[in-house]
Amino acid sequence: MLATLCSAALLTVAVGGQVQANDELLKLQQDPNQWVMWGGNYSGTRYSTLDQITNKNVKELRPVWTFSTGVLRGHEGGPLVIGDMQYVHTPFPNKVFAIDLNDQTVVWSYEPKQNADVIAVMCCDTVNRGLAYADGKIFLQQADTTLVALDAKKGDVIWSIKNGDPSKGETNTNAPLVVKDKILTGISGGEFGVRGRLTAYNIKDGSVAWQAFSVGPDKDMLVDPEKTTAMLKPIGKDSSVSTWQGDQWKIGGGTTWGWYTYDPALNLVYYGTGNPSTWNPSQRPGDNKWSMTIMARDADTGMAKWFYQKTPHDEWDYDGVNENILVDKEFQGKPRKLLVNMDRNGFGYTLDRETGELLVAEKYDPAVNWATHVDKETGRPEVVAKYSTAQNGPDVNTKGVCPAALGSKDQQPSSYSPKTGLLYVPTNHVCMDYEPYDISYVAGQPFVGATLSMFPAPNSHGGLGNFIAWDAIQGKIVWSLPEAFAVWSGVLSTAGDVVFYGTLEGYLKAVDATTGKELYRFKTPSGIIGNINTYTHKGKQYVAVLSGIGGWAGIGMAAGLSKSTEGLGAVGAFKQLSAYTQLGGVMTVFALPD
Amino acid sequence: MLATLCSAALLTVAVGGQVQANDELLKLQQDPNQWVMWGGNYSGTRYSTLDQITNKNVKELRPVWTFSTGVLRGHEGGPLVIGDMQYVHTPFPNKVFAIDLNDQTVVWSYEPKQNADVIAVMCCDTVNRGLAYADGKIFLQQADTTLVALDAKKGDVIWSIKNGDPSKGETNTNAPLVVKDKILTGISGGEFGVRGRLTAYNIKDGSVAWQAFSVGPDKDMLVDPEKTTAMLKPIGKDSSVSTWQGDQWKIGGGTTWGWYTYDPALNLVYYGTGNPSTWNPSQRPGDNKWSMTIMARDADTGMAKWFYQKTPHDEWDYDGVNENILVDKEFQGKPRKLLVNMDRNGFGYTLDRETGELLVAEKYDPAVNWATHVDKETGRPEVVAKYSTAQNGPDVNTKGVCPAALGSKDQQPSSYSPKTGLLYVPTNHVCMDYEPYDISYVAGQPFVGATLSMFPAPNSHGGLGNFIAWDAIQGKIVWSLPEAFAVWSGVLSTAGDVVFYGTLEGYLKAVDATTGKELYRFKTPSGIIGNINTYTHKGKQYVAVLSGIGGWAGIGMAAGLSKSTEGLGAVGAFKQLSAYTQLGGVMTVFALPD
Ligand SMILES: O=C(O)c1cc(C(=O)O)c2c(n1)C(=O)C(=O)c1cc(C(=O)O)[nH]c1-2
Ligand SMILES: O=C(O)c1cc(C(=O)O)c2c(n1)C(=O)C(=O)c1cc(C(=O)O)[nH]c1-2
Repeated sequence: MLATLCSAALLTVAVGGQVQANDELLKLQQDPNQWVMWGGNYSGTRYSTLDQITNKNVKELRPVWTFSTGVLRGHEGGPLVIGDMQYVHTPFPNKVFAIDLNDQTVVWSYEPKQNADVIAVMCCDTVNRGLAYADGKIFLQQADTTLVALDAKKGDVIWSIKNGDPSKGETNTNAPLVVKDKILTGISGGEFGVRGRLTAYNIKDGSVAWQAFSVGPDKDMLVDPEKTTAMLKPIGKDSSVSTWQGDQWKIGGGTTWGWYTYDPALNLVYYGTGNPSTWNPSQRPGDNKWSMTIMARDADTGMAKWFYQKTPHDEWDYDGVNENILVDKEFQGKPRKLLVNMDRNGFGYTLDRETGELLVAEKYDPAVNWATHVDKETGRPEVVAKYSTAQNGPDVNTKGVCPAALGSKDQQPSSYSPKTGLLYVPTNHVCMDYEPYDISYVAGQPFVGATLSMFPAPNSHGGLGNFIAWDAIQGKIVWSLPEAFAVWSGVLSTAGDVVFYGTLEGYLKAVDATTGKELYRFKTPSGIIGNINTYTHKGKQYVAVLSGIGGWAGIGMAAGLSKSTEGLGAVGAFKQLSAYTQLGGVMTVFALPD
Repeated sequence: MLATLCSAALLTVAVGGQVQANDELLKLQQDPNQWVMWGGNYSGTRYSTLDQITNKNVKELRPVWTFSTGVLRGHEGGPLVIGDMQYVHTPFPNKVFAIDLNDQTVVWSYEPKQNADVIAVMCCDTVNRGLAYADGKIFLQQADTTLVALDAKKGDVIWSIKNGDPSKGETNTNAPLVVKDKILTGISGGEFGVRGRLTAYNIKDGSVAWQAFSVGPDKDMLVDPEKTTAMLKPIGKDSSVSTWQGDQWKIGGGTTWGWYTYDPALNLVYYGTGNPSTWNPSQRPGDNKWSMTIMARDADTGMAKWFYQKTPHDEWDYDGVNENILVDKEFQGKPRKLLVNMDRNGFGYTLDRETGELLVAEKYDPAVNWATHVDKETGRPEVVAKYSTAQNGPDVNTKGVCPAALGSKDQQPSSYSPKTGLLYVPTNHVCMDYEPYDISYVAGQPFVGATLSMFPAPNSHGGLGNFIAWDAIQGKIVWSLPEAFAVWSGVLSTAGDVVFYGTLEGYLKAVDATTGKELYRFKTPSGIIGNINTYTHKGKQYVAVLSGIGGWAGIGMAAGLSKSTEGLGAVGAFKQLSAYTQLGGVMTVFALPD
């Protein structure tokens, strides 16, 4: 009764090897009929040239089929589409379903056997941000750090390796990225003192190609003191360890659980590093390099080309892991290869992605108050003393800091439309009280050291989020749509001048790419923290999204917590969510009428 | 942020008391804009006079909103709609959500605290068949037998009583029914030797009004040896105990977990009793009265008017609990008050509901082979020796019995359209091998005593189900649509000449009421075992259904069983389901475009 797999794309899958995998993916990521990696393409634009669904007809959109994953809690990421097959993943236990788009049957499914103990060391729900594809293989990065390559046609395990050790608080939530013959994956555990790193495994057999730590000695970090730059200058020797006290870098965080992008022409991989551990800044004097840093590395060797640290000596858990979107655009009259990063700290950064030159750093939420501005010469934010949890010290409740620890934007990836030249950014509009306290490191135990409570940005619309259009060249908000809750879903923009995003209440919304006018909404089964993707099947454009409330914003519902300061402070602010939605795990696929 | 409840219907809710509750429900059940009880009305026709959605325009149907319940496993029953409020229930842990139809917000929700041990003594998944409403109260019959009355506006508990004892294997899955000032509820546990009964509680305070056992001494059964009839004759003294060996009736089954209907003019309540315990017939010689019986009782006193035993001395677990649909129709030229019962045993029965006279008893699946026919004089089926598990005896595998234990139809309620005069029946097309064995009774332990395996009816279309139109007067199939799986959902027929049903793969299907031609299908998130309901809101017709695979047919998926004979024999036959659907729990609401 099972349909057999017949996909042009999959049939071309061949001999493996570096050049083939690269060529195949380079081609697939340019084919708007498929959705072959988390960002739609290596630039992470989450933009599709498909234009059957337009700002004129999107009001006719409707669900055409749905699929419950059988798993509850937060469903992040989105399905991949390769040929006739859609690959759907779930949060823990990280099931994978290969669905035949011709008849919606499950051609194969895979459920790893994982020790459920790992759930206790996942900071922010049991999320998984999705799969990767290359060379006839589907790559699944499990919560327990197992990275597994599955046969895309049959679901058989081809190889499987361990990327970390959950007993030390190491877990995985990120979507891996295939670049050439390697698969890149990160590590989570900044709240457990895990030392972050990005690791490249050979897609052929899972052997390690290179590994680059975020903090620590130069050789671990794959930096060249002379050639690796920051703010256009060589970083020098021991650039990381010199910014930590003693051996603290060993439990220093800088995890790498966000999204990865790649520029094939420059052969550079881009990603960000997370917060330094612990959340009590007084326990770790110094800049804590290279936590909170955008990193550009050679895809073949892992050697660092440039770094930019956004939040030196973090005092607010402003993890610097958000997606780096690669944009080619004029800047001050000159075409530039740009990188845009909407950081947790509330600043939208535009850099030259070849050199790491800082071009723009502006607030993308007017509520942001922890820093007045970013000094363009030094690249450093000017911290406001009142909101400095380090200056106020441990056991002092620093009140009214904006944004809250979950940032002006968290994991939810933005989209960039080359057609409008705008970035569409799902944002949080949440502030916090933050009281650090001393904590000792115990392997595998939470290493947080702060009590938080969160609330809507004061003197504003009362909601916890905004959906904004951002001009990354001017560093200006073009329009901003108030939302009742943080917008925690990944955005899609298309050549049809439509922008799609999801809300925590469960609405899939379509807005006009130019004006932001709402054109369509549909209440999906559960709150949306997934990414919206698009593809075609038999010539027709589809839009797909996973709903399933959870993630940090939805942790109260996902984990059944009710005390306001639980869930690292997020529970209180998002209490009202249960009036709108319940746990779920459903993919909804939309299309226009025939 | 919560919308306040503003429902004309609820505002009329008043002083309570017998006459009021009765009048209110009598009116509400005739109002097609609401859906106030499981069957839409007291007759259990599941027919709606709404006709905005027709066989002409149903192809334009589309989901307009969805709601994940946050619970997995089998979602049976369907939401109630009273005024602007929709009341949604779930399987264990039996959550209730009151949803404001104006904005789909959850006005209140209720989650009982139940000991999860009860799951182990539920025979056929953790299902719950739905809520009842009357007198400003929502009635929830929990799995652990707690019957609770909730304030329909606020969700507060008004009263709560215990209807049974899970430590003896007593549970509840049925939808209760309010008649006048009483709420009727049954009991499950035929597979645990539970002695069935129907109990009427006063809706005011939960006190017992009457209780009628299915088996046992006359006084327990609320029978009058002279006035209570069977086949038009008085049943006589000790009609039940005389058909059991010794005290066996005490653990004799005859549970009452199906659907209840009511004729206000006759003031009679109708329901069926389940299989005698155990499944090994050799251990319980006799007719095992009044298991497997349609019962008509006075709503005020519980006194039995008439009985009809469909399967004396059951040898196949053909539980006699299926819905009794009340139909007013000509029979042999005379208008008659009829009752139609599509029994598990594969015979479709039509009786005079005033007297219990047997009018029609014909097979509604040609595969049925355990009996040649029903003798109209005696009312008894003519059992085929080859398929008699009693005659073959214990430890003999009786092969190829049709239907399987889950019957030609199980709990899934049919619909009757007075417009077409047809019954629309969701059927199973499954046969079995059945090997009884001796078993001893231990309170709270399974008391099954048979090993089963099931398979599609041989020499047929290879599927496990059919959706049929049945002429209850002629006792003839009018048309039959083959289905890959048993059709386990409750049917809706409407004045728009459309019939809706759901499939285990997850399709909501709409077919033409006259021809059976498929007009629309939509793949809901999970397999459908829920009942399809319809109502209006602000003048627009909606169709709603819960999806969520489970129930006996889906027990393999729901409970994670994989051995073919597990799940009382159902696992093997339904193995292929996982190629189509996964666990879920989502309400999907459909409408035409504006
Ligand atoms: O420091 C870390 O290692 C780490 C990991 C994760 C994660 O893996 O999900 C999150 C965070 N931090 C974090 O700070 C955060 O805000 C966050 C949100 C989410 C989410 O999925 O909603 N994960 C994470
Ligand atoms: O004998 C009983 O008490 C009893 C209870 C139930 C139930 O409560 O669900 C079922 C059955 N029997 C049964 O025989 C059966 O086929 C069945 C199917 C289902 C279902 O919900 O799918 N329940 C039950």
